[in-house]
Amino acid sequence: MDWLDDVNFDERGLVPAIAQDAATGRVLMVAWMSREALASTVERGEAVYFSRSRGRLWKKGEESGHVQRVKAVRLDCDGDVILLAVEQAGGIACHTGRERCFFRRLAEGRWIDDEPVLKAPDAIYGARSGKPVP
Amino acid sequence: MDWLDDVNFDERGLVPAIAQDAATGRVLMVAWMSREALASTVERGEAVYFSRSRGRLWKKGEESGHVQRVKAVRLDCDGDVILLAVEQAGGIACHTGRERCFFRRLAEGRWIDDEPVLKAPDAIYGARSGKPVP
Repeated sequence: MDWLDDVNFDERGLVPAIAQDAATGRVLMVAWMSREALASTVERGEAVYFSRSRGRLWKKGEESGHVQRVKAVRLDCDGDVILLAVEQAGGIACHTGRERCFFRRLAEGRWIDDEPVLKAPDAIYGARSGKPVP
Repeated sequence: MDWLDDVNFDERGLVPAIAQDAATGRVLMVAWMSREALASTVERGEAVYFSRSRGRLWKKGEESGHVQRVKAVRLDCDGDVILLAVEQAGGIACHTGRERCFFRRLAEGRWIDDEPVLKAPDAIYGARSGKPVP
C-alpha cells in the first residue's frame, strides 16, 4: 500500500484526521489516525480512528452506532493531515449528542454553546459509568 | 483572558487549528497555534499560527499577502482543536499556489492532485532559495 507511505505520521505514529460532512461541508470532528487506522478506514469505507486515551483502534460508532461512511479521503501538502468527507449516521458526530464537536463559539471573550443537543448521551450510550465512546 | 484557559494545549503548548472558508465551507488548511498565537489571532482578527519548523509565531500571509481574516473562532468538545471561519485573501491558502492544502484525493490506491495551481509559487514569493513561508 504505497499511498500510505506518502502520509507523514508524527513521532507517535499519528496524524490528525478531520471529518467533514460530505453534504453540508460542516466540520464535524477531529480525531487521530495511525497507519493501521487509516488503512482500515479506506478498506472498510468507514472511519476508524486511533484512541490515544485507550491506546487502540476505535471504529467510530462502535458503541453509539454513529458510523461515518467515507466518501472521500484527502491529504494536505505536507502529508500530515487527513481530510475525510463523510456521511454521518444519525446526524450526530459528538459524544455530547450534538451534530458536531465544534459547538462552542468565541463571543465577546467567552465560549458560547450555540448548537443544540440532538440526543441525550444517556440515550445514546445507556446510563452507565465510564466515559462514553464517541 | 479566561477563555484561553479553556483551551487544552498539548505537551508542546500547541493545538491544531483548521482554517475553513467562511463563504464556501471548504477546508483550506491546518496549522498549529500556541496560546500566544491564538490570543494574537483573536486580537488582530487575522490568523496567526505557530511555525514548528521556525519555532516562532507566523502571521499567515506575512510574506505571501494571503492573509486570513477571521470571522469566527470555534472550539471542540475536548478543547483541543480550533476551527476558524476565514476570508482568504487572494483565494489562495496553500504555499503551492492552490486554493487549499488538501489538493490530493485518494483514488484507486494513489493520491491524485485534482485541484489547480492558481498562481505559481515564484510569483507569490519571488524566485529565491529557502522554503516559502505559507
